[in-house]
Amino acid sequence: MVLLSGGIDSTTTLACALKLGFQCHALSFDYGQRHKVELVSARRVAQSLGVTDHRIISIDLRAIGGSALTAPIDVPKDRPATERSHGIPVTYVPARNTIFLSFALGLAEATGAFDLFIGVNAVDYSGYPDCRPEFVRAFETLANLATKAGVEGQGQFRIHTPLIHLTKVEILQLGQSLGIDYRLTLSCYDPDSEGRSCGHCDSCLIRKDGFQAAGMLDPTPYISSSVEKTKS
Amino acid sequence: MVLLSGGIDSTTTLACALKLGFQCHALSFDYGQRHKVELVSARRVAQSLGVTDHRIISIDLRAIGGSALTAPIDVPKDRPATERSHGIPVTYVPARNTIFLSFALGLAEATGAFDLFIGVNAVDYSGYPDCRPEFVRAFETLANLATKAGVEGQGQFRIHTPLIHLTKVEILQLGQSLGIDYRLTLSCYDPDSEGRSCGHCDSCLIRKDGFQAAGMLDPTPYISSSVEKTKS
Repeated sequence: MVLLSGGIDSTTTLACALKLGFQCHALSFDYGQRHKVELVSARRVAQSLGVTDHRIISIDLRAIGGSALTAPIDVPKDRPATERSHGIPVTYVPARNTIFLSFALGLAEATGAFDLFIGVNAVDYSGYPDCRPEFVRAFETLANLATKAGVEGQGQFRIHTPLIHLTKVEILQLGQSLGIDYRLTLSCYDPDSEGRSCGHCDSCLIRKDGFQAAGMLDPTPYISSSVEKTKS
Repeated sequence: MVLLSGGIDSTTTLACALKLGFQCHALSFDYGQRHKVELVSARRVAQSLGVTDHRIISIDLRAIGGSALTAPIDVPKDRPATERSHGIPVTYVPARNTIFLSFALGLAEATGAFDLFIGVNAVDYSGYPDCRPEFVRAFETLANLATKAGVEGQGQFRIHTPLIHLTKVEILQLGQSLGIDYRLTLSCYDPDSEGRSCGHCDSCLIRKDGFQAAGMLDPTPYISSSVEKTKS
């Protein structure tokens, strides 16, 4: 059971899980996110990797709010790396990965799966608490106490995080070696309706820095560049 | 933040939280449950206890299935107590309390609350793994690692389970002392559309046994008794 947002990290995680020989089911969420168009990327990614069971579950995190991704709060733009590396930004969505993993756990149990994959990363990331190893370990402990399958010993739930200690460069290189076409992915928090990226939010900046540092061509369609193209 | 299904246990828990002086927000879920009519009870309970902030969040646990409450699986009827006390029945919903608490955690964080109440009980219950103290403690640990508010030390999330070690009789007596009108509550897994209880599912049997053992009048409208009334 692989959580798939359609960004670089979850896409690379899915490719890793496939490479490891797992029969993969992908799970995405229509959660009221500002960048709902990421689900188009998730669909394309799942198709390109040959994953036929890709479910999109609707949950209303706007009912919770408290984030620039689910409430009328501006997405921060053009923050320098020094600023981005301090604190937890307003794009943090309260309890999001806990909620996502809970659904993945329920679906895993109902389908007889014990391996959950999530593309969290605690190196080149936005400081979100629910991307750290201690969070993941705590969820794994919980999963085995919370479920019939865990308690009855039908198996041990494992939360796999193949990217957690990798830099963005290492993730991109890994993905490249696995044949991922990163043009299919979307990282932006504030894209337009056609899925072009803003190029200025934290997530775009981390993505841009990654491609640059990896010496890879950035295949991302950006809003500004296409506007400039139209102008010229 | 109090999880409220509209049954005896969550209603008593809400009354406890109010008695303890907490300003309570109630949270219920329209999750595709067979007994969706329980939400009518939850509304009535919240109103009767003067809780003005009662939210019902829609989540589709039918997309997960795997339970007699969310999939086309028969609800077991008339199981004797000896049978009910062994194993985890098919009314177990995969990861349900993990999912419910995750949403409660997100909403708590977004609103500045740190105290979550859940009416789980590990004495007169159906053996569900996510009703046990070890599950609750694991979720509390997770909550403080998963959230910005927990990690930044704005407070410590606590999962309160005032009923966890009480018998059904003790719960009913506690509720009676708090002035709860149990006519407003619904426990049944398989009620009719008007909210009358089947009287035969595990939840009805535990409820009936509780009222009887407590020497209290059972105020529950049952389907069979009303049919008999119609007949006579």
